[in-house]
Amino acid sequence: MVDVAVIGAGQTKYGNHDASLKGMWAEAAASAFASVDKNFEPKHIDEAYIGSVAFGGSQLGNTAALLTEHSAMKGIPVRRVENACASSGFALRDAWMAIKSGQADIVVAGGIEKMNDLTPERKRFWLGVSGDTEWERLAGLTFPGTYALMARRYFHEFNSNHDDLVNISVKNHWHGKDNEYAHIRKDVSFEKASNGFMVADPLTLYDCCPTSDGASCVILAADHIAKKFTEDPIWINGSAAASDYLALHDRPSITQLIATQKAARKAYDMGGINSSDIDIAEVHDCFTIAELLASEDLGFTKRGSGGEFARNGLGRRNEGDVCINPSGGLKSKGHPLGATGTGQTVEIFKQLRGEVESSRQVRDAEIGLTHNVGGSGATCAVHVYGRDRK
Amino acid sequence: MVDVAVIGAGQTKYGNHDASLKGMWAEAAASAFASVDKNFEPKHIDEAYIGSVAFGGSQLGNTAALLTEHSAMKGIPVRRVENACASSGFALRDAWMAIKSGQADIVVAGGIEKMNDLTPERKRFWLGVSGDTEWERLAGLTFPGTYALMARRYFHEFNSNHDDLVNISVKNHWHGKDNEYAHIRKDVSFEKASNGFMVADPLTLYDCCPTSDGASCVILAADHIAKKFTEDPIWINGSAAASDYLALHDRPSITQLIATQKAARKAYDMGGINSSDIDIAEVHDCFTIAELLASEDLGFTKRGSGGEFARNGLGRRNEGDVCINPSGGLKSKGHPLGATGTGQTVEIFKQLRGEVESSRQVRDAEIGLTHNVGGSGATCAVHVYGRDRK
Repeated sequence: MVDVAVIGAGQTKYGNHDASLKGMWAEAAASAFASVDKNFEPKHIDEAYIGSVAFGGSQLGNTAALLTEHSAMKGIPVRRVENACASSGFALRDAWMAIKSGQADIVVAGGIEKMNDLTPERKRFWLGVSGDTEWERLAGLTFPGTYALMARRYFHEFNSNHDDLVNISVKNHWHGKDNEYAHIRKDVSFEKASNGFMVADPLTLYDCCPTSDGASCVILAADHIAKKFTEDPIWINGSAAASDYLALHDRPSITQLIATQKAARKAYDMGGINSSDIDIAEVHDCFTIAELLASEDLGFTKRGSGGEFARNGLGRRNEGDVCINPSGGLKSKGHPLGATGTGQTVEIFKQLRGEVESSRQVRDAEIGLTHNVGGSGATCAVHVYGRDRK
Repeated sequence: MVDVAVIGAGQTKYGNHDASLKGMWAEAAASAFASVDKNFEPKHIDEAYIGSVAFGGSQLGNTAALLTEHSAMKGIPVRRVENACASSGFALRDAWMAIKSGQADIVVAGGIEKMNDLTPERKRFWLGVSGDTEWERLAGLTFPGTYALMARRYFHEFNSNHDDLVNISVKNHWHGKDNEYAHIRKDVSFEKASNGFMVADPLTLYDCCPTSDGASCVILAADHIAKKFTEDPIWINGSAAASDYLALHDRPSITQLIATQKAARKAYDMGGINSSDIDIAEVHDCFTIAELLASEDLGFTKRGSGGEFARNGLGRRNEGDVCINPSGGLKSKGHPLGATGTGQTVEIFKQLRGEVESSRQVRDAEIGLTHNVGGSGATCAVHVYGRDRK
């Protein structure tokens, strides 16, 4: 069976863009092309997968063909992959399988979102429909409200409180402040994050990721061809995904995401690793409580101890066994829905190759992980990466 | 490399449904499950791909997880694939590759659309965004108008006229009238189809497919496991896809779809066949002119002779070398955007196994084809099927 390497990865800055959807995608694609060390031309690309939720202000369609046409990839088979906020995590998985299938040698996976072309009402709509509609959204539950329920229940079950979430917010802002691609680049003090504007009790502004514009693009290659393009490929040693009940009330527990647990277990087995082997992890912290749950569901700490884990600074860069969200995560780097999954891959690719800003380079990172969640946990894709091929 | 078989296929009737999105999908899935000859249980499914454009009246999100949850597939990796009207043609391709990749043995590909929950304005929107938005839709060109331009140009270039299109309409209504799944089940006379209500000159009501609700679902299996479920699998011997310029004015010609030509050539090569080997073909006749162009682009007749081909009845059931749209095609069977691609596969599966209504069974069919187009030709997926494995 063929193995799959990341040979290039690029993205736009996340934030509020004046550029068009096409312009943003072309920038991310060009940045990915330029990141390949040698011999690469866009004509080498056999197939492409582009994750997007709301596309361009909800005005453009046939997005996949539109975007590849305008980024030197016209003519190849391409489709849009949509799985709420996990859209490009699944685009990555499908691109990985396309190479595994022997049908393609070079495949692009990417994602894009232009949230700030949406009216506030449509922005709420596109976030809201990521969760359940019939029992939650139409009954008045907002998307932050969904995660607020999880947080309240977590506090109740595990003797935790909002301070545990504040630690995560502070860490991610600290990680992201030097990231040239991050949407919100500033240190936030514990006190400030403790006293944020309330969004959905107990989640304040500092617990919630921003809604960002952005695009990301990664280039995958089959093992037999990867060395033509780089001496330093990053191998995708495991890819797994799972789904779960969409509505919270159907789940046996709302203080864990079963889809994350299942996908992680499979990805670790495939990659021949344990959670303790992972040096850097980009996890889906749409809200701080989501990172806390992920730190448990991914096995970095045991169930119920995510708060203590954060309190002890164990996810901070170069302090614990694993650096969680070295990019700043969704909280600081930003969250352009469809772009987030492959944007996580951009960070892992650059970190493992030692190519990020020196101030935020994680030392001696050999094994990485990306964790991309759709909605309130109905879908999840987990990938594990290594400097070495498994 | 593993080969891939269709072992089951089912769908709802196409038309105007009262059932919910979830109900329609559950019906299509249950119908596919029941069509498997033996030993099948939904828990055998490893992965799923669901094509949809506008989902449930634009109110539901995270559609893939929502639908699998409500059809006995909860927990598996699933994503929505969106490529305008070619959404489930690409879902099928991705499902096929998932098996080829060795990551899954049993994979579901399907599609769904509930067009009649949309307001007339949103219906026009979702059809319109399948074509180009910036140069066409926002300038006032309707989606039927796009194909009307192709028809006018075709008439000019090839000494053709509206009668050539009428023949296609009459044939497809005749094919579809006995199809229990068809939206519009009635014979239409040449005279009636010649004098239809004008939609976009020269296309009349009888040149345009209806907007339908519907869902379709097919079950694919790896070669080493297929025989456990059926003695009569239908093999997918070729899968290929391509893309093209989205806006018509960018294309060197608007009387051919380059994406169709490229995808067909690749699929034929992969399947070890020529166009002349194909006995039955479900082609994407969103408008009659689209079938005319497809009959040329797929190689059933030479360029410029599609009108003559139709005039001579060469695509009619049991009359020529190939039966085009035995189901009635989009014109009669209907066009629930995201469901259309795998709905074509349902027809080919049943025809090749001799399982359709006896009045419309194509005789001695051994090799089939499906041709699914996105928008005005910006994307296309072609699959070739055989009773025999290549």
